[in-house]
Amino acid sequence: MKRYEALAEELAESIASGQLRAGDRLPSVRESSRDRGISPSTVFEAYYLLEARGLIEARPRSGYFVRHAVASQPEPSASVPEMRERQVEVSELVFQVLGLARNRALTPLGSAFPSPMLFPLPRLALAMGKAARRLDPWRTVEDLSPGSAELRRQLGLRYLTSGCRVDADEVVITNGAMEALNLCLEVVTQPGDLVAIESPTFYGALQALERRGLKAVEVATHPRTGLDVDALASVLEKHPVKACWLMPNFQNPLGSLMPDEAKARLVALLARHQVPLIEDDVYGELYFSRRPRPAKAWDKTGLVLHCSSFSKSLAPGYRLGWTAAGRFAEAVARRKLMSTLATPVPIQEGLSEYLQRGGYDRHLRQLRQTLAQHRQQVLQAIARHFPAGTRATQPEGGYFVWVELPAEIDALALHQAALSEDISIAPGHLFSADHRFRHHLRINFGHPDHPRVEASIRALGRIAQAMNAREDSGGTRRSAGSSGSRHSSGTGAPFNEL
Amino acid sequence: MKRYEALAEELAESIASGQLRAGDRLPSVRESSRDRGISPSTVFEAYYLLEARGLIEARPRSGYFVRHAVASQPEPSASVPEMRERQVEVSELVFQVLGLARNRALTPLGSAFPSPMLFPLPRLALAMGKAARRLDPWRTVEDLSPGSAELRRQLGLRYLTSGCRVDADEVVITNGAMEALNLCLEVVTQPGDLVAIESPTFYGALQALERRGLKAVEVATHPRTGLDVDALASVLEKHPVKACWLMPNFQNPLGSLMPDEAKARLVALLARHQVPLIEDDVYGELYFSRRPRPAKAWDKTGLVLHCSSFSKSLAPGYRLGWTAAGRFAEAVARRKLMSTLATPVPIQEGLSEYLQRGGYDRHLRQLRQTLAQHRQQVLQAIARHFPAGTRATQPEGGYFVWVELPAEIDALALHQAALSEDISIAPGHLFSADHRFRHHLRINFGHPDHPRVEASIRALGRIAQAMNAREDSGGTRRSAGSSGSRHSSGTGAPFNEL
Repeated sequence: MKRYEALAEELAESIASGQLRAGDRLPSVRESSRDRGISPSTVFEAYYLLEARGLIEARPRSGYFVRHAVASQPEPSASVPEMRERQVEVSELVFQVLGLARNRALTPLGSAFPSPMLFPLPRLALAMGKAARRLDPWRTVEDLSPGSAELRRQLGLRYLTSGCRVDADEVVITNGAMEALNLCLEVVTQPGDLVAIESPTFYGALQALERRGLKAVEVATHPRTGLDVDALASVLEKHPVKACWLMPNFQNPLGSLMPDEAKARLVALLARHQVPLIEDDVYGELYFSRRPRPAKAWDKTGLVLHCSSFSKSLAPGYRLGWTAAGRFAEAVARRKLMSTLATPVPIQEGLSEYLQRGGYDRHLRQLRQTLAQHRQQVLQAIARHFPAGTRATQPEGGYFVWVELPAEIDALALHQAALSEDISIAPGHLFSADHRFRHHLRINFGHPDHPRVEASIRALGRIAQAMNAREDSGGTRRSAGSSGSRHSSGTGAPFNEL
Repeated sequence: MKRYEALAEELAESIASGQLRAGDRLPSVRESSRDRGISPSTVFEAYYLLEARGLIEARPRSGYFVRHAVASQPEPSASVPEMRERQVEVSELVFQVLGLARNRALTPLGSAFPSPMLFPLPRLALAMGKAARRLDPWRTVEDLSPGSAELRRQLGLRYLTSGCRVDADEVVITNGAMEALNLCLEVVTQPGDLVAIESPTFYGALQALERRGLKAVEVATHPRTGLDVDALASVLEKHPVKACWLMPNFQNPLGSLMPDEAKARLVALLARHQVPLIEDDVYGELYFSRRPRPAKAWDKTGLVLHCSSFSKSLAPGYRLGWTAAGRFAEAVARRKLMSTLATPVPIQEGLSEYLQRGGYDRHLRQLRQTLAQHRQQVLQAIARHFPAGTRATQPEGGYFVWVELPAEIDALALHQAALSEDISIAPGHLFSADHRFRHHLRINFGHPDHPRVEASIRALGRIAQAMNAREDSGGTRRSAGSSGSRHSSGTGAPFNEL
């Protein structure tokens, strides 16, 4: 950690512990520099970092002050799913809603991806070109699944920085995390098996379960600390769970982060039951304060299949993912040989070349600051424009906010109405097998054009207020949906039949 | 078709029809040029092409002569499978045998890939670099499954050159043909269903069936004309076949080519039974005389899912494949969204850039000549060195010869013994669900180092002769296997337990 990062960290902890309170003035850059015997530019960088994270603010000619907790919204309520076994059928809805989100004319608040402009694509292109020109032709045969030995070695090294020992032999290179997760699911389940997931959960997990013909049992979560381990323990007692698919770090859609202690309990619990954990950790690098350890760090029995990728942190569209699959590594590598054989060799070599050159960590620091800043802007915009009674998470990483609207507002109707104003959102219906999150939405803050994002959130707020008012005055809440035909997908059932 | 190609074609037909016979002298280049009113270089190019195909030979100071049919071996016998429903369990054996073939110290007669040295990798690298540098960042979101619109348009154009009309909307870009084939299988079957395949068949098809929990029924083939359509008709009458997975063009491992008339009957038969055809056409571009049409060319009902890739013809290791999936196109695109989401965008853009630049057809002409030449050399070497009674196919495209040894020789034992001399082969056991092809092997002639290939075939012949002699003198044929421990994989059961 650089000196300015250490200072920022120390101050952030003072704020978190309440030692420094909202409104407190920080020592000036000059004072801090003198008192601590460090350069003014180091202090300035630390303050800049804290400002970007939304913890302090500069007031002209007065200095730096600890901010009031930014978002005035309370947290969404903890989820209380039914925790019973359930067939999964969500894909049709997911395709209808997300197929629209590719349209670049829309403000992509519903997108699953951060803005592609946040990534070092020109540097990646140079690395790709160089690797392709130097490519030893025989690598096209040798880098089949489990993948390039050099790239797997580099991934093993990166695991060390996240506090996790992973042997390169355990790593299988895949086509994005999505393939890794699907292959892992294929290896640890048979069709008809039961899998425990979070409530709410990433719709991609639901689709993967549906594709393999698996049943789901949804487990309670807290919007800040994620999975309720006690609830999972009771599910494991009552149901024949064959695997868990969870996101301990910056869960999609909640943005929640499981504390270390909860991760340790989770891994121990699953080891006792001999249930494999498929750990989706694609947002782990996008932390705003400190790198969270994956649950894999506590794994002693090889039951944790940790899955990640560069798609959200470095190289969107390159589709380079991997899994550190513990005792299942060879089985996963073979499943890949049987399905997609190999991840493209120029992609493996290009990413390996990029990682060797260095620069990834510098890029990540920049990306984290940018995302932290957007989070503050988006949370403030939501506080300003959304109806009274709205709740929102305050994630410590990733780029999603989970919003709970007043119960009268139907998120699918809001989605339809928003489309007619060229805004996409991800309605809560997508995030559970029983479509229970009907007045929730996931908002992506990974897009840098803030004036446009702010205007879109204002527009969303206006639509939601209107729907709320109509509801109060006895109108049907579905009616707002009918104005959204401009962008309707034209495939399958209309949304309001759900 | 260029003028020299037309002339070569005309002469090849005269040879095929018997109008020109083995030993006949062709008119000299000067005579032909004068008689036909074409340039000497055109005649020379045509003769060169025919020579490469092994149809004529130059004798110093005498001119060009029609060759004696090169391979003196007869064709292997037509396959007569049991044609009953069968569980598929081949993967363990396939992984054991093929895991070894990645070792570049071995002469790769057992490899599934042609030599990577046969491909324009430097030109591809330039196209990749250029495409990556110019990449519009938003393409990383827009080129998700079904894939880049421009690349799909170009593939639609290429279909025209193979006598097949395919709409770009029907094309889904995949990670190699392997993913295309697996996705198609997923869309047209449910676990437990029955799929008709050729006997022998590509082990990758067997593995795909095994992975999805499907049963197989194997259908008789002829070593030159491939699938026996009448046999398939009778299978369809008796069994609840849900899909066919076939290779009408240059079948792996036979190298057989179904005549147009048989393809037309096949497609009509399946349309009557409303059974989808998954057509694996990865070798279609590697013809030695004329581009064969895919069965898809006769498809009127959208029941043919045509799958191919650039892996064998242009860009090994790039893992760019596709399917023209007829009425199943949208379902396939969605399955891909659920499993690997997208084929890497830089790969899609790089190949698209390469195709736009031109040069693919020039590369293909060169590649076809090279492969045709290797075929002759390998067939001659087999004729020279293998035991009496050996039979071999004479494929008109691709890079595989299917060899039937005397019945006493066990191909797995030969495989083990060959490994100890640093030679890989693909034993016939891999190519059917019941391991019935026990004295057969597939030989890859796609590797250009002919002296080494010839020496390896000589060594194989010597080993086979010895095994044959031992068998005659009462030794057990398994004993040869024990000398092959140097390269044994160390995973799972020893080969001779099969």
